[in-house]
Amino acid sequence: MKDRLPEEKVFKDPVHKYIYVQDQLIWNLINTREFQRLRRIRQLGTSYLTFHGAEHSRFSHSLGVYEITRKIISQFERSGYPGWPKEEKLVALCAALLHDIGHGPFSHSIEDVFETHHEAWTCRILLEDTAINRVLRAFDPSYPERVAAVICKTYHEPIVVSLVSSQMDADRMDYLLRDAYFTGVNYGTFDLERILRVLRPHQGRIVVKESGMHAVEDYLMSRYQMYWQVYFHPVTRSSEIILRQIFRRAKELQGGGYDFSWMMPPLEKLITGTIDIGDYLALDEALVQTAFAAWASEPDPVLSDLCRRFLDRRLYKYVTMDRPDEKLWQDIRSAILSIGLHPDYHLEIDFPYDMPYHVYRPGKTRNAGKEEKPPILLLSGEDQLSEISGRSDIVRSITGIHQGKYHLYYPEEPLLESAQLLPANIRELFALM
Amino acid sequence: MKDRLPEEKVFKDPVHKYIYVQDQLIWNLINTREFQRLRRIRQLGTSYLTFHGAEHSRFSHSLGVYEITRKIISQFERSGYPGWPKEEKLVALCAALLHDIGHGPFSHSIEDVFETHHEAWTCRILLEDTAINRVLRAFDPSYPERVAAVICKTYHEPIVVSLVSSQMDADRMDYLLRDAYFTGVNYGTFDLERILRVLRPHQGRIVVKESGMHAVEDYLMSRYQMYWQVYFHPVTRSSEIILRQIFRRAKELQGGGYDFSWMMPPLEKLITGTIDIGDYLALDEALVQTAFAAWASEPDPVLSDLCRRFLDRRLYKYVTMDRPDEKLWQDIRSAILSIGLHPDYHLEIDFPYDMPYHVYRPGKTRNAGKEEKPPILLLSGEDQLSEISGRSDIVRSITGIHQGKYHLYYPEEPLLESAQLLPANIRELFALM
Amino acid sequence: MKDRLPEEKVFKDPVHKYIYVQDQLIWNLINTREFQRLRRIRQLGTSYLTFHGAEHSRFSHSLGVYEITRKIISQFERSGYPGWPKEEKLVALCAALLHDIGHGPFSHSIEDVFETHHEAWTCRILLEDTAINRVLRAFDPSYPERVAAVICKTYHEPIVVSLVSSQMDADRMDYLLRDAYFTGVNYGTFDLERILRVLRPHQGRIVVKESGMHAVEDYLMSRYQMYWQVYFHPVTRSSEIILRQIFRRAKELQGGGYDFSWMMPPLEKLITGTIDIGDYLALDEALVQTAFAAWASEPDPVLSDLCRRFLDRRLYKYVTMDRPDEKLWQDIRSAILSIGLHPDYHLEIDFPYDMPYHVYRPGKTRNAGKEEKPPILLLSGEDQLSEISGRSDIVRSITGIHQGKYHLYYPEEPLLESAQLLPANIRELFALM
Amino acid sequence: MKDRLPEEKVFKDPVHKYIYVQDQLIWNLINTREFQRLRRIRQLGTSYLTFHGAEHSRFSHSLGVYEITRKIISQFERSGYPGWPKEEKLVALCAALLHDIGHGPFSHSIEDVFETHHEAWTCRILLEDTAINRVLRAFDPSYPERVAAVICKTYHEPIVVSLVSSQMDADRMDYLLRDAYFTGVNYGTFDLERILRVLRPHQGRIVVKESGMHAVEDYLMSRYQMYWQVYFHPVTRSSEIILRQIFRRAKELQGGGYDFSWMMPPLEKLITGTIDIGDYLALDEALVQTAFAAWASEPDPVLSDLCRRFLDRRLYKYVTMDRPDEKLWQDIRSAILSIGLHPDYHLEIDFPYDMPYHVYRPGKTRNAGKEEKPPILLLSGEDQLSEISGRSDIVRSITGIHQGKYHLYYPEEPLLESAQLLPANIRELFALM
Repeated sequence: MKDRLPEEKVFKDPVHKYIYVQDQLIWNLINTREFQRLRRIRQLGTSYLTFHGAEHSRFSHSLGVYEITRKIISQFERSGYPGWPKEEKLVALCAALLHDIGHGPFSHSIEDVFETHHEAWTCRILLEDTAINRVLRAFDPSYPERVAAVICKTYHEPIVVSLVSSQMDADRMDYLLRDAYFTGVNYGTFDLERILRVLRPHQGRIVVKESGMHAVEDYLMSRYQMYWQVYFHPVTRSSEIILRQIFRRAKELQGGGYDFSWMMPPLEKLITGTIDIGDYLALDEALVQTAFAAWASEPDPVLSDLCRRFLDRRLYKYVTMDRPDEKLWQDIRSAILSIGLHPDYHLEIDFPYDMPYHVYRPGKTRNAGKEEKPPILLLSGEDQLSEISGRSDIVRSITGIHQGKYHLYYPEEPLLESAQLLPANIRELFALM
Repeated sequence: MKDRLPEEKVFKDPVHKYIYVQDQLIWNLINTREFQRLRRIRQLGTSYLTFHGAEHSRFSHSLGVYEITRKIISQFERSGYPGWPKEEKLVALCAALLHDIGHGPFSHSIEDVFETHHEAWTCRILLEDTAINRVLRAFDPSYPERVAAVICKTYHEPIVVSLVSSQMDADRMDYLLRDAYFTGVNYGTFDLERILRVLRPHQGRIVVKESGMHAVEDYLMSRYQMYWQVYFHPVTRSSEIILRQIFRRAKELQGGGYDFSWMMPPLEKLITGTIDIGDYLALDEALVQTAFAAWASEPDPVLSDLCRRFLDRRLYKYVTMDRPDEKLWQDIRSAILSIGLHPDYHLEIDFPYDMPYHVYRPGKTRNAGKEEKPPILLLSGEDQLSEISGRSDIVRSITGIHQGKYHLYYPEEPLLESAQLLPANIRELFALM
Repeated sequence: MKDRLPEEKVFKDPVHKYIYVQDQLIWNLINTREFQRLRRIRQLGTSYLTFHGAEHSRFSHSLGVYEITRKIISQFERSGYPGWPKEEKLVALCAALLHDIGHGPFSHSIEDVFETHHEAWTCRILLEDTAINRVLRAFDPSYPERVAAVICKTYHEPIVVSLVSSQMDADRMDYLLRDAYFTGVNYGTFDLERILRVLRPHQGRIVVKESGMHAVEDYLMSRYQMYWQVYFHPVTRSSEIILRQIFRRAKELQGGGYDFSWMMPPLEKLITGTIDIGDYLALDEALVQTAFAAWASEPDPVLSDLCRRFLDRRLYKYVTMDRPDEKLWQDIRSAILSIGLHPDYHLEIDFPYDMPYHVYRPGKTRNAGKEEKPPILLLSGEDQLSEISGRSDIVRSITGIHQGKYHLYYPEEPLLESAQLLPANIRELFALM
Repeated sequence: MKDRLPEEKVFKDPVHKYIYVQDQLIWNLINTREFQRLRRIRQLGTSYLTFHGAEHSRFSHSLGVYEITRKIISQFERSGYPGWPKEEKLVALCAALLHDIGHGPFSHSIEDVFETHHEAWTCRILLEDTAINRVLRAFDPSYPERVAAVICKTYHEPIVVSLVSSQMDADRMDYLLRDAYFTGVNYGTFDLERILRVLRPHQGRIVVKESGMHAVEDYLMSRYQMYWQVYFHPVTRSSEIILRQIFRRAKELQGGGYDFSWMMPPLEKLITGTIDIGDYLALDEALVQTAFAAWASEPDPVLSDLCRRFLDRRLYKYVTMDRPDEKLWQDIRSAILSIGLHPDYHLEIDFPYDMPYHVYRPGKTRNAGKEEKPPILLLSGEDQLSEISGRSDIVRSITGIHQGKYHLYYPEEPLLESAQLLPANIRELFALM
């Protein structure tokens, strides 16, 4: 394989204007079926039900992460910074491009219910018998392992890991800009060009030149706003709850020996926990939505109602409340049960704080089990480093904020119909006057 | 049903910033399952395989057409123009919102192969037993027919038709801006706010105040550029050819009694020409892509290869040529056949001129059978009208341009493998040296 | 005078796209010579020496404030909110348009040195013999007083004052967006359309619907960033220091009976404190720059050097330091004096905290003598008001920040030349090694 | 002088986001007083009286031309195109930066009346005793001549000339984008990044790769629109006429021995045709506006009225007409004279076709005396060149368009006052009914 393409290729991209591909290896990776499959998986899961523009795919995001990484490295090379190991460029670009290759349809919900992990799938897709593995090996037999090591953060050159995974990495920079663009909210925009100019490779990590502090503040404010305006939007949460309930119901029915009138092998294997890599790669959002459309006619009323709701966007409503005590919670469940609903499927308390997305919180380990990304460091003079929240009042203030509120989600129509059958405190809770 | 919503609702939209809903009727229409289904149908069909950002749906476009129509009417009402019949506002808004409700997945290809027409489906969805029909009737029993009449251009108030369907209607204005935004090309942007300001209702049609001529020129140039840069892009054409060949092959196999290992009722009825409205509404792009994924494992090699190509984006290549004479055409087909390919599926000549999209061509009836939209008229003084291409050199020049070129599409891989078996003129034609 | 223009007029504006004028009174005010004069006064004073795009005038800003006010009022009227007194619309629009009419060239510097106040001049221009006064009186004899009362915050309808002058008024919204646009920094952008949607007239003030809290946060962050990135930029501060020194020197020379080889009456009267309204209106930035160009050849070396520096943008350099103690300060002055410089003109300590611009600080009265603007209130339900910093962690954190640093400004060239004559601690302070 | 700056400098620029300076020579040139003086000369002359945002200076445009040139050359060098002579980079950058250095205030009007030429002044500033000359010479004694030769199009490497001066050069690309940005019209935007990607150095000229044809079409349409929407706007034309009349009147008065109550040496020397380089560099728009403010009180009624009009933006109105025959022209002049006006100053026929700006017209030499810029060539394959209007219908159509209309400009107020004294045909012509 030749290293450089005879002529640079470009993709038109609304966020970065153009995405430039200069290496044959990158071009070949993009053209694998596993990478093309990312076109059929939305970047923001169910957010398109809240923000109708948010229909963009993980394919476009992956190209974007690649492009930002390419720009950072170009800048490092052009400036001749000694801290950047030039021979790692292509490994870094591959890792940037492929870091999300293991994502499946509606990943967060599926991972919750079926206990799969997209990171694990990413490694398998890199290392097992796939077109991606073949392309990487053809270039260099060590590449599958090296790229996987960067993504798993075990690579021997920590600076390469830092590029792809840190509190201000190419991944986050692309998704904030891209999600802002496609949702149409303008909270997520920040000055990417300026941030790229102030990044420096320094002793195995990417740090920020001190003069870039305000640009980093702006980036972190964008993150903060995007989380609370977009990623944690209650309508999106509601649709994710419906989605999860569908999967939970399907799993429960399957476990109980239910005979689905419609099923496809990859989905069945997902549900029964016997999925292999070929099946996993056959899963996409088209298949999931087709299943929901078919299941909307299943005899099981819980499953068919949930599927119908998802397709027609008749989502659960919510009320905001303080953390409910055990007594109240039991009252609510009893009331739901008393009017013929199913408390396990028709009720859910959501507290967006402990979601898969997490806001910048250096040094805290509050959401246990979740590995913390290294903090953002400012570089003063030649080699004085300081953690940004020690320098910026704004960052310090964001650091401590989590803002979670308890939301109780439920189907409004049946409650309205049976309102007179419910106790007064429950009627009040759901504003059913 | 109350006419006005107690509080205005908004949708965040990247193109218009916000879309404002003020009427209960509009809100109810948006929440029908038929309208929500438009979320599962892409606005630009297969263009996302060329421009990866172009993943936006007909749902967002339909809201956009509604919003532009709402803005035009607001402007007419605010200015108190006598030519606008105020009582038609809500009918016009419904027609704007619902004008694309009959579209199915990858409409153009499906209509070509199965001879359905989305306009006909639109009328059926408005007039038969659907949620949309119920919502319209509940508001006013005459509304289904009135809205259908506007969309079918038979309405008694021609100015309402003109709003929704003309050479510079709300539909086109939205799709140019929206497609430009999501593809990321900036050819399609024009000054919408200025155009809205120069529109005038005049004797049953929407005309343009003379001082807006340059804004119209700019709009028409955007159209011209979008057609040749986006809508007619050869890579998009290639993917549409593959799509059409898949449908053609499935129809042929079905006609020959082939036993598909995977099929779903709505699709089967589409193929056998027995589709009813319930089936039609069950068709969406998810179902089509799921079918392709299943058919990629069908025993029929032509069908499975085409499906695999579509999913993995291994499209046909093309060469540009003069119009081939019959002799050359037969030579090409023979050569294709001689190396074991199937000329009906592995070859297609495309001449984008006679496509479903059409460039502004007032007064020409060259693409017979295709109804012409009325031309754009400039209003000078109180009531002097003149057709714009008689006034603008630029418009005159675009009017005569069609720029079509013959492209011959074919699968490159098998030709490369068997190149030495082909005659010299064929090798030269396909640049197989 | 007819109230409405026969046809709406528009100005093309880069920030708001178009500015709409519908009232004859507004049109006539714009065409007065006093208003046209604002074209010759830059909105951001000397900032163009730091951000070369920032050459926009107070004329464009004044139109922008008018336009935002017009949009807010239109929204109030369209929604029929009871808290808005409809008969005040035109007074409010006049006040918005004219609120900066009293500004002179490089206002802040001139006001510092010559103790004039643009607010006082605004009132005089409204109330004395000017074209503006004549236009207002012709419309309604009470208008000059009423408009002046709004601008002076003594008007009997406090909500009108609140529109034009509060912590989130039309003035600030326009200048943040406009200054961001023309400097090219993108920190200053926020979602104006969303903010306009959540404003409500409520008991004599403009408040914000609770659901708009995040939009207000974003607006305040823009403010914060613009202050520290643009308004307090050290290079801009340096040019303002030079400017002030020029005026101080001219005043000192004049007081000493110096015979300027070039002088014009309005400037002379400004310097001698005898300026009347006619002279004041004759002052513009063209005249000031022409004076500086002439004075660059004055025999007085301090004055000519300062003028040359301003014109050629050879500004003072600065060092950041802790607050200097009296001893150090005397050392610095002595050192400056010892090499033939003039400590009163060639040294200045600047602490941007106490600048004419002030960051949102509700309830603090730290910069004494400076009237505080009322805080931003959130409206929950029908009439529960709460101050925003009690609700938003982000706003609370910004509220306490002032970030001022001491900067010592000085001319670098003569210090470099005489470095070896200076004591070691002074050399170190100025980094003259 | 060291070649490279120790650290890259940037200017924040609204059009290009950042402007990058990497060479000490460029940095030093920017800091000369002659270059800084361009901050006091507006890029678009009097256009700010039509488009209030258009207050940007030649300083910002010059930086922009430099930046586009830098990007083109970077692209050439990165791609290693053989047609680009690497050793010419710095000369090209200097020429790009300095190509407008000879512009004075309101150049076109001043050149018309006083017969100076900014190109000639550019050469003198490069070659005579100026800071710019000193900086260039310090770098390389041959540089003043070399840079001047590029700007005068006599340089021995034609490709360097082509970069800075052709039908699609860095100058035009910057001013279209910049003028569109600051006026706020969006006609002038085109895809700069795409155009930069398709430029190729080829046999001593810059040509365009064939696949870039549509991007060039879009650029030329932008040009066309900007000319007719912005550069030839009748209100701007009116203000230029007033300006030119002021200069003509001052020259006439001076020739007649009139004793100006206010005058400054550089202006006086300009008027008497005795201006030298020091005086020329002292001319800026501040001085001209200050002169007009002073002359608004001159006893000569023609001069004072014209100056007052300019400052207060009370411009001449216009009527559109066919080319007037000699008889009508004399009638108009007589009528003007009969009511006490001065036909030489209160009447002007304008036909914008023969203006200093010219639309793309390859091969025509219609505006005699005006040198034609070389056409745009498309490169197919390795070395087949074709002129673009032979390939593009759109370009061909623009090529033949000039659209000029005769406009008759006049002061409306005195004509309205004396309407009843004028003959009927004159009243009709001026619509004085």
